[in-house]
Amino acid sequence: MIRAGIIGATGYAGNEIVRLLSGHREVRIGWLVSRSFEGQNYADIYRNFFDIIDMDCLGNEIDELLDRVDVVFTATPQGFLSSMLKREMLDKAKFIDLSADYRIKDVNIYEEWYKIEHKSPELIEEAVYGLCEVNREDIKKARLVANPGCFTTCSILTAYPLIKEQLIDPDTLIINALSGVSGAGRGAKVANLFCEVNESAKAYGVATHRHTPEIEEQLSYAFNGKVTVNFTPHLIPMNRGILVTETASLKDGADEGSIRSAYEKYFGKEAFIRLMKEDLSPETRFVEGSNYTDIGFKVDRRTNRVIMMGALDNLVKGAAGQAVQNMNIMFGFDEAEGLRAVPMVP
Amino acid sequence: MIRAGIIGATGYAGNEIVRLLSGHREVRIGWLVSRSFEGQNYADIYRNFFDIIDMDCLGNEIDELLDRVDVVFTATPQGFLSSMLKREMLDKAKFIDLSADYRIKDVNIYEEWYKIEHKSPELIEEAVYGLCEVNREDIKKARLVANPGCFTTCSILTAYPLIKEQLIDPDTLIINALSGVSGAGRGAKVANLFCEVNESAKAYGVATHRHTPEIEEQLSYAFNGKVTVNFTPHLIPMNRGILVTETASLKDGADEGSIRSAYEKYFGKEAFIRLMKEDLSPETRFVEGSNYTDIGFKVDRRTNRVIMMGALDNLVKGAAGQAVQNMNIMFGFDEAEGLRAVPMVP
Amino acid sequence: MIRAGIIGATGYAGNEIVRLLSGHREVRIGWLVSRSFEGQNYADIYRNFFDIIDMDCLGNEIDELLDRVDVVFTATPQGFLSSMLKREMLDKAKFIDLSADYRIKDVNIYEEWYKIEHKSPELIEEAVYGLCEVNREDIKKARLVANPGCFTTCSILTAYPLIKEQLIDPDTLIINALSGVSGAGRGAKVANLFCEVNESAKAYGVATHRHTPEIEEQLSYAFNGKVTVNFTPHLIPMNRGILVTETASLKDGADEGSIRSAYEKYFGKEAFIRLMKEDLSPETRFVEGSNYTDIGFKVDRRTNRVIMMGALDNLVKGAAGQAVQNMNIMFGFDEAEGLRAVPMVP
Amino acid sequence: MIRAGIIGATGYAGNEIVRLLSGHREVRIGWLVSRSFEGQNYADIYRNFFDIIDMDCLGNEIDELLDRVDVVFTATPQGFLSSMLKREMLDKAKFIDLSADYRIKDVNIYEEWYKIEHKSPELIEEAVYGLCEVNREDIKKARLVANPGCFTTCSILTAYPLIKEQLIDPDTLIINALSGVSGAGRGAKVANLFCEVNESAKAYGVATHRHTPEIEEQLSYAFNGKVTVNFTPHLIPMNRGILVTETASLKDGADEGSIRSAYEKYFGKEAFIRLMKEDLSPETRFVEGSNYTDIGFKVDRRTNRVIMMGALDNLVKGAAGQAVQNMNIMFGFDEAEGLRAVPMVP
Repeated sequence: MIRAGIIGATGYAGNEIVRLLSGHREVRIGWLVSRSFEGQNYADIYRNFFDIIDMDCLGNEIDELLDRVDVVFTATPQGFLSSMLKREMLDKAKFIDLSADYRIKDVNIYEEWYKIEHKSPELIEEAVYGLCEVNREDIKKARLVANPGCFTTCSILTAYPLIKEQLIDPDTLIINALSGVSGAGRGAKVANLFCEVNESAKAYGVATHRHTPEIEEQLSYAFNGKVTVNFTPHLIPMNRGILVTETASLKDGADEGSIRSAYEKYFGKEAFIRLMKEDLSPETRFVEGSNYTDIGFKVDRRTNRVIMMGALDNLVKGAAGQAVQNMNIMFGFDEAEGLRAVPMVP
Repeated sequence: MIRAGIIGATGYAGNEIVRLLSGHREVRIGWLVSRSFEGQNYADIYRNFFDIIDMDCLGNEIDELLDRVDVVFTATPQGFLSSMLKREMLDKAKFIDLSADYRIKDVNIYEEWYKIEHKSPELIEEAVYGLCEVNREDIKKARLVANPGCFTTCSILTAYPLIKEQLIDPDTLIINALSGVSGAGRGAKVANLFCEVNESAKAYGVATHRHTPEIEEQLSYAFNGKVTVNFTPHLIPMNRGILVTETASLKDGADEGSIRSAYEKYFGKEAFIRLMKEDLSPETRFVEGSNYTDIGFKVDRRTNRVIMMGALDNLVKGAAGQAVQNMNIMFGFDEAEGLRAVPMVP
Repeated sequence: MIRAGIIGATGYAGNEIVRLLSGHREVRIGWLVSRSFEGQNYADIYRNFFDIIDMDCLGNEIDELLDRVDVVFTATPQGFLSSMLKREMLDKAKFIDLSADYRIKDVNIYEEWYKIEHKSPELIEEAVYGLCEVNREDIKKARLVANPGCFTTCSILTAYPLIKEQLIDPDTLIINALSGVSGAGRGAKVANLFCEVNESAKAYGVATHRHTPEIEEQLSYAFNGKVTVNFTPHLIPMNRGILVTETASLKDGADEGSIRSAYEKYFGKEAFIRLMKEDLSPETRFVEGSNYTDIGFKVDRRTNRVIMMGALDNLVKGAAGQAVQNMNIMFGFDEAEGLRAVPMVP
Repeated sequence: MIRAGIIGATGYAGNEIVRLLSGHREVRIGWLVSRSFEGQNYADIYRNFFDIIDMDCLGNEIDELLDRVDVVFTATPQGFLSSMLKREMLDKAKFIDLSADYRIKDVNIYEEWYKIEHKSPELIEEAVYGLCEVNREDIKKARLVANPGCFTTCSILTAYPLIKEQLIDPDTLIINALSGVSGAGRGAKVANLFCEVNESAKAYGVATHRHTPEIEEQLSYAFNGKVTVNFTPHLIPMNRGILVTETASLKDGADEGSIRSAYEKYFGKEAFIRLMKEDLSPETRFVEGSNYTDIGFKVDRRTNRVIMMGALDNLVKGAAGQAVQNMNIMFGFDEAEGLRAVPMVP
């Protein structure tokens, strides 16, 4: 049994970590930190936890808090952890960071896309990109995991085998993505009010969304060469879910068979990736509340392109679930522990 | 380890039973019956179960199926089980019926409200009304449990202690209820299409809803006298959730203190009933996906009335969850086994 | 052709006034005032008006602005107009106030429920309560109209004929109401974020909602005696719409026939009230975008009560539409001018 | 004043035609035909029309009905009009067909994609493709207009100027589209139930959607050469709205300036196309209920592509509104008559 601390516990991702850890047999929650709600009872903020968790939110006295836990989840804004983390803190507890602070190896790219000065670039090298199905071996040994973004996890996993096996031309890769509103966080912004979002759809961050360089970096590793993509996210009126639709030109010889084989090769045995049967498209409702990524594809012979589709729950596999999965890998637990919930329909 | 069979497995309640049993340590699913989808793989219909459950839906050869299970859940239309069930079948397996067939002791009332002839009235007496928090001792010994309806569970639990303790005048009890759309089932009806339901609200079954006599019968037991109520349900655009708002005149001497004491007396130690703190109203989102019923109240001194409010997930505590809770009681399992999921927010 | 000014033009009600006046043949918009967006182009805030309205939002220099218009709509917070309005301003332009400042004749009740000191109580007497179907003759002569609230309009109209004709016992009147989220305004509050409201329902302001004394005052006029009610509003996940369900005990002799006659007597010739056919319940979708109030009822012989139901669009008949209707009456225009839009389904 | 008949009046598009014509000064509705609801009062089916329209739905005795109207709208399934229409009927009334029957000039392509035998191929030549902003001159003289599909109108208009002006390489054009659920019609299908659609997103018709050849044909005319595209539609949980996001590689020399000029050249004076300001993305809520198409774009210098975005209301500009606009052009009315409604927000 280990103990976990959560910084940023009152955001949607933080709340989801608490929910998942509540059902985890190997972990106990040591403390919850929330700057906005310091001193308040956690169940007064998230009444789903009423009669379940009786803990007050603490402030940011991290140094003393560190001694009381084995692992820290930071579900905090960009720049928070990087301005606080020091190498010696990693000797005390392992860190799983849900922000983008340590996801991008080239600090210049991070600073350019996020418009933030990185305060601890010396720790970037040590950080492991926590895309479990791709970097499992490195994650096992990691002290600092950069948990991937929701769009990113879905976008990368959906294209990874085809890029890796050279079945598609990465120069033609176009990624369109749909996101539920919880991805925008719990901040009090007019743009995220019910009446501003409900019954509407829009693209946003067009050609400038911060998840773009993260997707490109990881796909470049897979391709073993530079990959540049168009990534266009859209906001749609639902609470949870990411759906990506990716289009790319097939390389010579690529066909249904080789594509399916590639997916099977990399993901056939993965507990949390489900490869759809022929001609089926993933739907976000079928992964809601679970750690699954559902992936399907369709070859279009008329245009010699493949349409790849992936779906996940942005708060689970796209955030808290993958963070717990990373923790399981880092501590040698069963990788599915705490993550076995069946998707909830409807 | 026992085995369970589910008849009507492809409705929303049936699917929820399958979901809950998938996480239950003491039960294995023996078979799934669905007349509409006989022969089809269950995970092709409910793709949330893809890679999780690999079973084909069977038809209605109940007699031979009975030998293979210890308990049968029937999530079937009114009149199905009552036209099929025979006493000797109860020797083979216990039955938990999610329809209304055995909920009402007076068969004439059943036939009047449901416009169906009851085909096995001789079994009504044996059936136990499966409102766990009220009838636990009888449920322990039951072979046939009539699992309460969603509106009913919420309506009764919310008023029960105040009726039982004579704190309100039952003749003044007005029950208004809101329901998510999953309560209307999965039949292909125009009235339940997205565009007919979304962005709208309506009352329905006004003065004629079939859950009325069920509520009245149970509250009459509590009151030890005849209770007649106005029950007005409304359909609102959300997937899951029941919210009831009940208003009644206070009897002499009833006040905040005596009301809270009454709730504490009957439900203070219940695992699945949460009594809200002062002045807080339950919200359906805080019980979603869980087996909880959240109850709050407010005394209005201007009118000498109390407003009682209850919230539950119609597919869990209002259907499948209570059915599993009944099973746990009937078989001597921990009553919360398989039902410990924290409500999922958002 | 007259000119109108709108103060508070960037709230949802203000935006709806602008929308309705854009299609009105007798009115031109003179100016738009918004403290929050002063200096910004209106169509940059509400892009539905892009290429339609090209006006910048002004600040609060009301004195000079008054000379340029014949009527002023104030869609502003409680206390705004009452702290600014002076009697001589009413000589320059007529005022239609969408706040509660002049709705309640007894200033003590206003101050008690709104927790605000009223700064111009001397003007309350002159103000006419702008419930068009009830106070039409007084509105014709008014210089200052207190436009009723959304819950209030629906609650009063639905019960008015039965109270007036002494068909129900007002002491037994219970009002439950459902509201879409636009009624909560456009302020940046966590409670109104999409993910906080979507897929949930809750009661709020239980026994304390500020629309209560307004309903009671108007129904007391109708009853010619003091009426005290329980009013319980609920928030449900849709943009627009109010649905009220009211329950009351029938007086001796009241039946379907006398009830229908009463509704016909008061509303049978009203352009914006539609009396549902027998056994039909109003649905908010059937009034969306329009100025209609749909009213239906059902007598329950078992309980000797009547269930009355009313539906309207909170931003139209519940706010901007009724304000325009009041303007039409005040200026002698066709009462339906600018308000003839057919409800939009779906 | 002319008279219009509507066949298929009880579908969502038919209902929208009735709504728009109700506010049109030059048209009176002559009759409403609905096979499913023959003999029923229209306002009993669509209660938004209660107290507004008092007409019974007729059956299909078209020959006699034709004499009573000047124009017929057919909002009917594929294959209906083509199996009924004869050339002499066009002498009696003009036809505006909202189905795909006469949209595609090559009958083989129609039959291949729609899996229907075309029963009146001899009339295809005469039909004018009713994309008003592109084919206005031909529409003026037309007797038979093939009203474009919702996805199609949005997809074509969004790309048209850039294709026409050779600013993008049509071989690289990828079209992703999002649709509200009303596009799926009012048929009683499980797939369109509230609980199947709400809180979910999915792609459908991947590489096979029937609007593909229609888009390709029209863009080929613009390009003056064969255009083949990937068109991937998605279903998202809202009532109304189409949002397309199109990506294409820029040709040499194309930049922000030349792209904006191209849009201005073709659409700058169009009443129903609004070109967004720099860096703004269209949102479906800002066109809801109106006949507008909002178009925006963003050049991505990193990838040398342009992302084009278009939004419209699928039931208005994507169906009924464009049909009325076509009628206005055909009969010489003001093109905007009956279509001036401001988009309704929220």
